[in-house]
Amino acid sequence: MNCLLLSKTAINNKKISNPQQVNHIKKVLKSKVGDSLIIGKLGGHLGRAVISEMTDTEILLIDIVLDKQPPAKLDVTVVLALPRPKVMRRLIMDMTALGVNKIILVNSYRTQKSYWQSPLLNRLDEFVLEGLQQAIDTIAPKIEFKKRFKPFVEDEFAELLAESSTSNKQQARAVIAHPYALQSWQDYLNDINKANKTVTLQNTPITVSKIPKAMPKVLCIGAEGGWIDYEVDLLCQQGCTAVSLGERILRTEAVVNVLLGSWLTV
Amino acid sequence: MNCLLLSKTAINNKKISNPQQVNHIKKVLKSKVGDSLIIGKLGGHLGRAVISEMTDTEILLIDIVLDKQPPAKLDVTVVLALPRPKVMRRLIMDMTALGVNKIILVNSYRTQKSYWQSPLLNRLDEFVLEGLQQAIDTIAPKIEFKKRFKPFVEDEFAELLAESSTSNKQQARAVIAHPYALQSWQDYLNDINKANKTVTLQNTPITVSKIPKAMPKVLCIGAEGGWIDYEVDLLCQQGCTAVSLGERILRTEAVVNVLLGSWLTV
Repeated sequence: MNCLLLSKTAINNKKISNPQQVNHIKKVLKSKVGDSLIIGKLGGHLGRAVISEMTDTEILLIDIVLDKQPPAKLDVTVVLALPRPKVMRRLIMDMTALGVNKIILVNSYRTQKSYWQSPLLNRLDEFVLEGLQQAIDTIAPKIEFKKRFKPFVEDEFAELLAESSTSNKQQARAVIAHPYALQSWQDYLNDINKANKTVTLQNTPITVSKIPKAMPKVLCIGAEGGWIDYEVDLLCQQGCTAVSLGERILRTEAVVNVLLGSWLTV
Repeated sequence: MNCLLLSKTAINNKKISNPQQVNHIKKVLKSKVGDSLIIGKLGGHLGRAVISEMTDTEILLIDIVLDKQPPAKLDVTVVLALPRPKVMRRLIMDMTALGVNKIILVNSYRTQKSYWQSPLLNRLDEFVLEGLQQAIDTIAPKIEFKKRFKPFVEDEFAELLAESSTSNKQQARAVIAHPYALQSWQDYLNDINKANKTVTLQNTPITVSKIPKAMPKVLCIGAEGGWIDYEVDLLCQQGCTAVSLGERILRTEAVVNVLLGSWLTV
């Protein structure tokens, strides 16, 4: 928590009463009356305030100044196959902290049905708040759910490519992260099986490119186990390029940071 | 777990008895007798084997072939301030999966003393195994502990820069990740305080550069809250360049992936 994000009401009342925030000010920052805090108004500006009074449950503020713009958002939509609830919190937090503009959680073949029933799906706002307070930002990413993969890709995906706020011609349209290594391992095992048992390969050949240098408008990332070929095909029909990080297969959380990181630092 | 890494003994006995691996084969892969598995020999080659028999606690193998080289390691040493035990597992796992060659866990001002007593420090081999099995690799990173920051930096750090296996002239020597944003926020708050109370700034000015394009030989990453100025100074005296990802402050786990990602995909 590198800043304290406050609602409009909290700012108007000059009072912090969120228990996590009160605890952070007392236990982590060890602030006292008269100390300055880095604060922000949710959806608004960043700035500072001075602590005028501290009770067990509340921190009262004076000299509130909100005079700094939040950092710019990344012009990217992440389409993420709904992940295991356990990794959801960190994924939402990290994408928020990195400044992803929009997050679309979609169903996929490897998304287990139970994931859609997870109570954590009702707590996304908390995870977003954590990400914003980590990064010192005030603007939450837009989050949408698409429980049906095919209609989403066929009817709505193209719009995402048009929606961008910039007209950066260097920007690739859409990229799908595809663990190429596993594909090559499947071929390796299939070749062995074919020699022994004449198994027919079910995989359609997918061309996998290197990571483009410029950030795409849309980045599609699979659940654990990646996308299945059908999903890759459907996304590629809508203009996605399948890209691979190389031989190594990374966790979903790591892939999100690695890929966005590669474009952040160009 | 994208491959099953086996000890020399397990390979010689043609038998998997590690409970996590047995469980993975049965519950996740849902393999049957006659199916092929992707295996590897710890420290050796990758390859495949066929299941000949399954009991409650063991998987017996035939047709073991180890004919693939593991992926190349990254020519980088990560010097990491010992993190909170809770994030240790994922950090070790991710650095291993990305192919970091050497990891040095050091003490730092913001490393709490209790972290050095964590029982998780005795389980690093497990986390390395998880990372290798995630990435389909067989070679563990070297891991060292340095409980005293100053002697390590002053007496041993220079050696790390000489140790590299390549002679890539493009490669920067050493980089220290420094959350520039927080520095600028500290200046912002200090300026306010100075106006009110004439507080003397304690920070020595630190020049912060952009992320270099080529991977450095050594990457230094702080604990939560980053390095303190004294630590940054000491590392910079040994040839480190302080770099920043920009305005946003990310979690340690995210920073490791974002930075290594930026060099992986160049």
